[in-house]
Amino acid sequence: MENKVVTFGEVMMRLSTPGFSRFIQSDAFDVTYGGGEANVAVSLAQFGMGAAHVTRFPDNELGRAATNLMRKYGVDTQHIVYGGNRLGLYFLETGASVRASKVIYDRAGSSFADLQPEMIDWERALDGVSWFHWTGITPAISEGAAASCKKAIEVANSKGITVSADINYRKNLWQYGKKASEVMPDLIAGCDLIVSGKSDAKDILKITSNEPDEDTSYIDVFSQIMERFPKVKKIVNTTRGSISASHNTLSGMLYDGSQLLHTTTYDINPIVDRIGGGDAFMAGLIYGMLEYQDNQKALDFGVAASVLKHTILEDANLATVEEVETLLNGDTSGRLQR
Amino acid sequence: MENKVVTFGEVMMRLSTPGFSRFIQSDAFDVTYGGGEANVAVSLAQFGMGAAHVTRFPDNELGRAATNLMRKYGVDTQHIVYGGNRLGLYFLETGASVRASKVIYDRAGSSFADLQPEMIDWERALDGVSWFHWTGITPAISEGAAASCKKAIEVANSKGITVSADINYRKNLWQYGKKASEVMPDLIAGCDLIVSGKSDAKDILKITSNEPDEDTSYIDVFSQIMERFPKVKKIVNTTRGSISASHNTLSGMLYDGSQLLHTTTYDINPIVDRIGGGDAFMAGLIYGMLEYQDNQKALDFGVAASVLKHTILEDANLATVEEVETLLNGDTSGRLQR
Amino acid sequence: MENKVVTFGEVMMRLSTPGFSRFIQSDAFDVTYGGGEANVAVSLAQFGMGAAHVTRFPDNELGRAATNLMRKYGVDTQHIVYGGNRLGLYFLETGASVRASKVIYDRAGSSFADLQPEMIDWERALDGVSWFHWTGITPAISEGAAASCKKAIEVANSKGITVSADINYRKNLWQYGKKASEVMPDLIAGCDLIVSGKSDAKDILKITSNEPDEDTSYIDVFSQIMERFPKVKKIVNTTRGSISASHNTLSGMLYDGSQLLHTTTYDINPIVDRIGGGDAFMAGLIYGMLEYQDNQKALDFGVAASVLKHTILEDANLATVEEVETLLNGDTSGRLQR
Amino acid sequence: MENKVVTFGEVMMRLSTPGFSRFIQSDAFDVTYGGGEANVAVSLAQFGMGAAHVTRFPDNELGRAATNLMRKYGVDTQHIVYGGNRLGLYFLETGASVRASKVIYDRAGSSFADLQPEMIDWERALDGVSWFHWTGITPAISEGAAASCKKAIEVANSKGITVSADINYRKNLWQYGKKASEVMPDLIAGCDLIVSGKSDAKDILKITSNEPDEDTSYIDVFSQIMERFPKVKKIVNTTRGSISASHNTLSGMLYDGSQLLHTTTYDINPIVDRIGGGDAFMAGLIYGMLEYQDNQKALDFGVAASVLKHTILEDANLATVEEVETLLNGDTSGRLQR
Amino acid sequence: MENKVVTFGEVMMRLSTPGFSRFIQSDAFDVTYGGGEANVAVSLAQFGMGAAHVTRFPDNELGRAATNLMRKYGVDTQHIVYGGNRLGLYFLETGASVRASKVIYDRAGSSFADLQPEMIDWERALDGVSWFHWTGITPAISEGAAASCKKAIEVANSKGITVSADINYRKNLWQYGKKASEVMPDLIAGCDLIVSGKSDAKDILKITSNEPDEDTSYIDVFSQIMERFPKVKKIVNTTRGSISASHNTLSGMLYDGSQLLHTTTYDINPIVDRIGGGDAFMAGLIYGMLEYQDNQKALDFGVAASVLKHTILEDANLATVEEVETLLNGDTSGRLQR
Amino acid sequence: MENKVVTFGEVMMRLSTPGFSRFIQSDAFDVTYGGGEANVAVSLAQFGMGAAHVTRFPDNELGRAATNLMRKYGVDTQHIVYGGNRLGLYFLETGASVRASKVIYDRAGSSFADLQPEMIDWERALDGVSWFHWTGITPAISEGAAASCKKAIEVANSKGITVSADINYRKNLWQYGKKASEVMPDLIAGCDLIVSGKSDAKDILKITSNEPDEDTSYIDVFSQIMERFPKVKKIVNTTRGSISASHNTLSGMLYDGSQLLHTTTYDINPIVDRIGGGDAFMAGLIYGMLEYQDNQKALDFGVAASVLKHTILEDANLATVEEVETLLNGDTSGRLQR
Repeated sequence: MENKVVTFGEVMMRLSTPGFSRFIQSDAFDVTYGGGEANVAVSLAQFGMGAAHVTRFPDNELGRAATNLMRKYGVDTQHIVYGGNRLGLYFLETGASVRASKVIYDRAGSSFADLQPEMIDWERALDGVSWFHWTGITPAISEGAAASCKKAIEVANSKGITVSADINYRKNLWQYGKKASEVMPDLIAGCDLIVSGKSDAKDILKITSNEPDEDTSYIDVFSQIMERFPKVKKIVNTTRGSISASHNTLSGMLYDGSQLLHTTTYDINPIVDRIGGGDAFMAGLIYGMLEYQDNQKALDFGVAASVLKHTILEDANLATVEEVETLLNGDTSGRLQR
Repeated sequence: MENKVVTFGEVMMRLSTPGFSRFIQSDAFDVTYGGGEANVAVSLAQFGMGAAHVTRFPDNELGRAATNLMRKYGVDTQHIVYGGNRLGLYFLETGASVRASKVIYDRAGSSFADLQPEMIDWERALDGVSWFHWTGITPAISEGAAASCKKAIEVANSKGITVSADINYRKNLWQYGKKASEVMPDLIAGCDLIVSGKSDAKDILKITSNEPDEDTSYIDVFSQIMERFPKVKKIVNTTRGSISASHNTLSGMLYDGSQLLHTTTYDINPIVDRIGGGDAFMAGLIYGMLEYQDNQKALDFGVAASVLKHTILEDANLATVEEVETLLNGDTSGRLQR
Repeated sequence: MENKVVTFGEVMMRLSTPGFSRFIQSDAFDVTYGGGEANVAVSLAQFGMGAAHVTRFPDNELGRAATNLMRKYGVDTQHIVYGGNRLGLYFLETGASVRASKVIYDRAGSSFADLQPEMIDWERALDGVSWFHWTGITPAISEGAAASCKKAIEVANSKGITVSADINYRKNLWQYGKKASEVMPDLIAGCDLIVSGKSDAKDILKITSNEPDEDTSYIDVFSQIMERFPKVKKIVNTTRGSISASHNTLSGMLYDGSQLLHTTTYDINPIVDRIGGGDAFMAGLIYGMLEYQDNQKALDFGVAASVLKHTILEDANLATVEEVETLLNGDTSGRLQR
Repeated sequence: MENKVVTFGEVMMRLSTPGFSRFIQSDAFDVTYGGGEANVAVSLAQFGMGAAHVTRFPDNELGRAATNLMRKYGVDTQHIVYGGNRLGLYFLETGASVRASKVIYDRAGSSFADLQPEMIDWERALDGVSWFHWTGITPAISEGAAASCKKAIEVANSKGITVSADINYRKNLWQYGKKASEVMPDLIAGCDLIVSGKSDAKDILKITSNEPDEDTSYIDVFSQIMERFPKVKKIVNTTRGSISASHNTLSGMLYDGSQLLHTTTYDINPIVDRIGGGDAFMAGLIYGMLEYQDNQKALDFGVAASVLKHTILEDANLATVEEVETLLNGDTSGRLQR
Repeated sequence: MENKVVTFGEVMMRLSTPGFSRFIQSDAFDVTYGGGEANVAVSLAQFGMGAAHVTRFPDNELGRAATNLMRKYGVDTQHIVYGGNRLGLYFLETGASVRASKVIYDRAGSSFADLQPEMIDWERALDGVSWFHWTGITPAISEGAAASCKKAIEVANSKGITVSADINYRKNLWQYGKKASEVMPDLIAGCDLIVSGKSDAKDILKITSNEPDEDTSYIDVFSQIMERFPKVKKIVNTTRGSISASHNTLSGMLYDGSQLLHTTTYDINPIVDRIGGGDAFMAGLIYGMLEYQDNQKALDFGVAASVLKHTILEDANLATVEEVETLLNGDTSGRLQR
Repeated sequence: MENKVVTFGEVMMRLSTPGFSRFIQSDAFDVTYGGGEANVAVSLAQFGMGAAHVTRFPDNELGRAATNLMRKYGVDTQHIVYGGNRLGLYFLETGASVRASKVIYDRAGSSFADLQPEMIDWERALDGVSWFHWTGITPAISEGAAASCKKAIEVANSKGITVSADINYRKNLWQYGKKASEVMPDLIAGCDLIVSGKSDAKDILKITSNEPDEDTSYIDVFSQIMERFPKVKKIVNTTRGSISASHNTLSGMLYDGSQLLHTTTYDINPIVDRIGGGDAFMAGLIYGMLEYQDNQKALDFGVAASVLKHTILEDANLATVEEVETLLNGDTSGRLQR
């Protein structure tokens, strides 16, 4: 397969309580490593697509363990740089039924937060690449991370690489003195495809709609974004129904400037691991765009991939193309395969 | 917080098969410690309320481990006494779907069963206390336990402490030669608030109703109880719908002598740990009564607390006030909290 | 209890990923031993019925561990023979929600596949036996296994022992140069009761129906089978509805040559372990036939047993007669048993 | 093999902390089942010898699990009787280096303690048996257990069965009003072979020696015992050197009335599981006596078997004859076997 | 017991690989909480002595879990303060034989590092206290931690409380712009007893000796310290022989200004958990000083306690006084205790 | 680093009982993947050296998991080919003290055994490579494996790549109709360096010595080998002393045609994982040869690496160059590293 996708962002150690134990009950944590953008790379590698991730780790066993996990799943890790003080962490407690899952982040002062633009050779890292993907988390972490992201987008644009972003807004980040609304527009301007909900559009871009109807209000918001960022040709979004921590529904939409495409709505019950659902969608969408060159198929593939992710432990989607296609073709039966 | 609640009763070692393993499949047991009344104290301590538990343990590492668990969760254990032969145990096999959970008790001859009234200095243990709670299990265990319970209620009454009881009837206990109907009335007479279902009322007090309507029959039974025990000003009860071992519904009611209050009915699916659901309700109710001074709010808080308990492993409810209030305010979505 | 049932077939080591882990995520496997026919024997032994299993294991610690597991659960293992090269294995990944469970077989060249008819003394193994059970898997494994099965059926017929078979067709087996349609009819001819779906009938016996109605088409197919195999007096089948990997429905039917009996349809949610559901049905049916001498009760018992199996880990049904009867009598509440 | 050995005594659930965790650190226990006499039967079954154990269990899942474990390892369990209130338990914390292992017994009121002589049909249980083995623990548990033991010895004597006993004295038992010195002599009188140290002889039989030399003092004590109990023809003993909880030495001796035989002294480092070392010796000795008809070989086999037991988890020795013989023949190298 | 000891210092979450797994192999970590000073408090509480720990935790579930662990083991946690950004962590990989254990600290920016002197009410925290203990780690963490330590020592001195310090020098700490030699002398000046090796004396106080003999050089160094810090009346030290990661020797010495006392040298093999060996010594020494009022006995108790700690998992010594005394009295046999 | 090493051979799934459990006790296996040659590649990758492994796996999740493990540890897996029927397996039971570890192989019919020479493009796989390593296990597996090995050596020779082999003789392999003595000489002829003990030389090459002295007999055997295979310039060997399964000694020797070099003898106690000790030596030796260009340093590095491997779980040595050098420099203290 000739396409190669590069993703960029922080990877954290994930420390999760086993099963449904609470933080205050656990004397052991399950350990894995993940991050919104790395999860996209891991999923793409399971789909058999060339995928590389760029990040920064401390030069110790924990940083090496994080690299190893990505390498295990087939991600090219040669452009990862090492240095700085610590690996960012997050702690996860998995909820059930009416009890929500909880995440405690511990990422301040991480090697990635101390990243400076000159540390990564983006010309080399993006050489021969088809697609570059980033998320709104990266520019929220630190001035250096934002500047690095900007430089990556510039290099990608200069090379004619497709750029996508999940612009999601996390208000608890953005602690370094700049606001999302100051930093993000410049970065979004370099994108071809973005994932954005209405609240992201409002929080980051101050774009809202008064349209009463759901679909028309989405079209209104997405059109305003496209008007402001003419490079952006596709805007996608997923809609999650939270019946409980164990039972969700999921569907997706894509606006291409003229049409608002929709997918079927899937039922997910029980949820095995909620983390990385959006990243799995993104990976599926990128795969679909590159493989099928068809908006509807790409969107459908993305949503089906995301649904499957909810049944898989750890951050990244380990489903194969065949598994996604089985679901895409309507088989939700989960019938035993011998 | 100035309120302090004291609970009294046996604490057992709980030996449960991991996951959904059956007794005859398991070569390891998960270990915790719990008991109907201690579970109330642990839950109250999580709510930030002063809580102490009084019981008797053998003077060995197992008794100390049981004390340690309560202490870990913030319960005052200074009035626990040590001596006797053994720690009571119970074995738990967790069911799923149509298969029921099973409990095998092994509590005969425990240090608590050998308790004598003079072993506990109730004057000191109840000093500065707002609320005393006991259950119908304690007087069912042994003559000494019943006598100790009686003494505790008397001291509580003499100090003007609010007394509550979950009078639940366990027919497999009551092996020491006395019947519940002989022992319980005296103890109930000293209570301000009791938890009682219609079957408890019938089994223990021989009180029944011929009212055809659900609500009116409850009012009838509760009124008869209040007539017989004029100190009892509130009677509460929860109603559980057992769709399967994994899926229950739960609601509550409270009769204050004039009105029968109801709560919403919650859906719990899946159930993570069914044990201690009633104790979690009791703790929530006590917290609500002391904090809100409002029957409806206290009842609602108790039922929401109990619903949350079903999603938490081990005997006691480790939910916080904030978590109960989120549920109480109608958010059953279990949406991920970052 | 005087009845004794003998089952015959391969037993494999089952290596399953813990919880919902994927094969590529697991650095530990849970280990048990099972096989379609041995599972029937284990279940019958839990029902208190005499049960023996006949198979062949390698003469090493793994073969002994497999024997030990059956012996643990009360199955008579004295007619198991030892020799050959290896224990067959299968790997299991447990699915959830829309993700299917997966099985990877690794049974080629097993000690059982190398079985020759003269290795087992069927006269002794079937001495004093009431019922002999085999499945369509055995003749699919190797020429020697098929010949051994044939010999067992002949001896059973000569002794007037009731013979049953679950004729299920696995197209991935049958690799030794013969087709199911060449081998199976001879074996089915010696049976009194068979389990067969419409697809098995078509694949193995080329029997189909054009009847538009579900029931009448089953009666049509089953009647054709009985016409061709006059010894077969009862044909049974279960119907599974696959809502998801976690949620199935199950019901059963039995045709006695004149009537098509049905059971209630059970809801199973969540499924704890899907493997061995059919074997649990078979064991329940055999138990019911021998104990109740009533087709409807036997069928009902078989389906209820199978439903319970879905809530029990490992291959074999470890439910007791009491548990099956509780379910059979309509109690699907899974209410805690103290 | 024609020899069959029957053992008799209590079997307890063993609850041990994982690895080197302390009781107050553990939230899980490993579970197995064992007892001094049952351990002998399990070990003999691993040696390929016919072995049956007689005991009494509660009629619940825990009793069945205990039976299942023995059955798994090939012990004939058909003479086990069911009834009474509870399964005896013991808790085990495994020490290391200077920290000792600890056992907390919880066996009062067990089904075995409530055993009455008429509950077991000893005529049938000892039919066709070569050897009967009991220990000094059984008569120490209760009057009924002592009486049952007496009856078993009488029946064994009447049938000409060889009777052996490990007479070990546990001062914490013997709580039912009789002293070991009142009860044991009658039972020892029926034995052909006993295991006894000098302290046992002193505590139980008031037999001591003033001989200054180690060997001559043993001969003196053993001769006095034989004089008093003329049926006793062999007295054996093992000597343990406790360098630390992780490092022991072990040797054995046997007196046949004329000679004091010795074995080599083995070094055991590290000890994996100390429990059941003496039972493993006993099983090896019985095996050796029955198979080799040679005191020295039997003694050597017993000590080597006991040494191996220290490297095997759980109560019973799971070593094979081949493994014991490898050690016996001087190969202590533990060289990898492919 | 009337003595109460207060300790002060950072408590970290300890994340250790299970068994002997390496960091890069582990997908689970065992979790506990510990710190050099808190370990002293936990050990003292196991000895039955009143013990309180003062520290600062983030106000989240992880901080509460750390508090809970200390509370579980009986430490008074009421003077712990909450706030700041994160809980300090350390990662531990346990070595064996020639492979060393490794620790990766991740404590920068912790809630404790951000501690300011005014956050703790030392007057209240030290009210009614006999002994105050701190270590050289605390002033090395941050300016605020050093100032808090200074204030605590001042208050302790003003109240006539005995003050002890383990002055150990960790060169990787001391990152906030001050050197140990600038900060420590002021703090040591307020101590009655310190633990110091020769390298600590050199690194922190520039005190060395040219005495050729081991003992006289220690006396020389200790005398110089005492001359400089007249309040210091006792200086203690332990000597560890590292045969391998699994096998160490340990002994202790105490100088009282006139005499250099020694202990026996213990052999520790295998080591179960090396962390906290020094803290266990300190706790034993404090206990011994307060209980026995005898330098030699206190020193002996401290070393024996430390030896036992090496056999116990997690940071703190969970040995009891009885266990330490058994070892102290020369019983290193680790003989099974029933 | 410019050097790149390619290794070739079968990789098996390793299924090991946890801790010291026996096969017949275990209901879970730890899972990893390893093979004599792949272990060399993994170790070299940990040393920072370029390493690739060539093998054949089934095209299923288990084959992918095996690839993933090597990729995780930095081995280039791009020349692995997929196809065939199954992944070879081996089962491991870890011994202790006098009890030996046991391996049960289950590798017949594996994808690797069915390998044919044309399946691998050796020209590409060996392009730009410095060193090629194989072992005597590969030609013992099947005719195709032997032919593939021959072809690889020919291509390596044609490219001037250094070729090494551990010629170890496993008599249980060699089942395909040819003897080692027929196949091996041709392969050894293409080697520059071999590992061979005296028994290997005798079994494979019929070369023996009558020299009475240990060193001179080794020189004699090695000289004869070199005479017969003039390309072989270095012969190395390790000597293991088996004090017990837990305690070994290890040293190495290297003959360069004129001198017999020796290393120090290391003590390993306790052994954590004995598997792969020889492979770790090989990797260390190759690293040493390529990095230091000094026979003595390379040999010393190899032995120190092997010693460290015994303290590391799983098949491959995960020690770093720094760790090996610490040991090499004489620090066997295992002192805690902070």
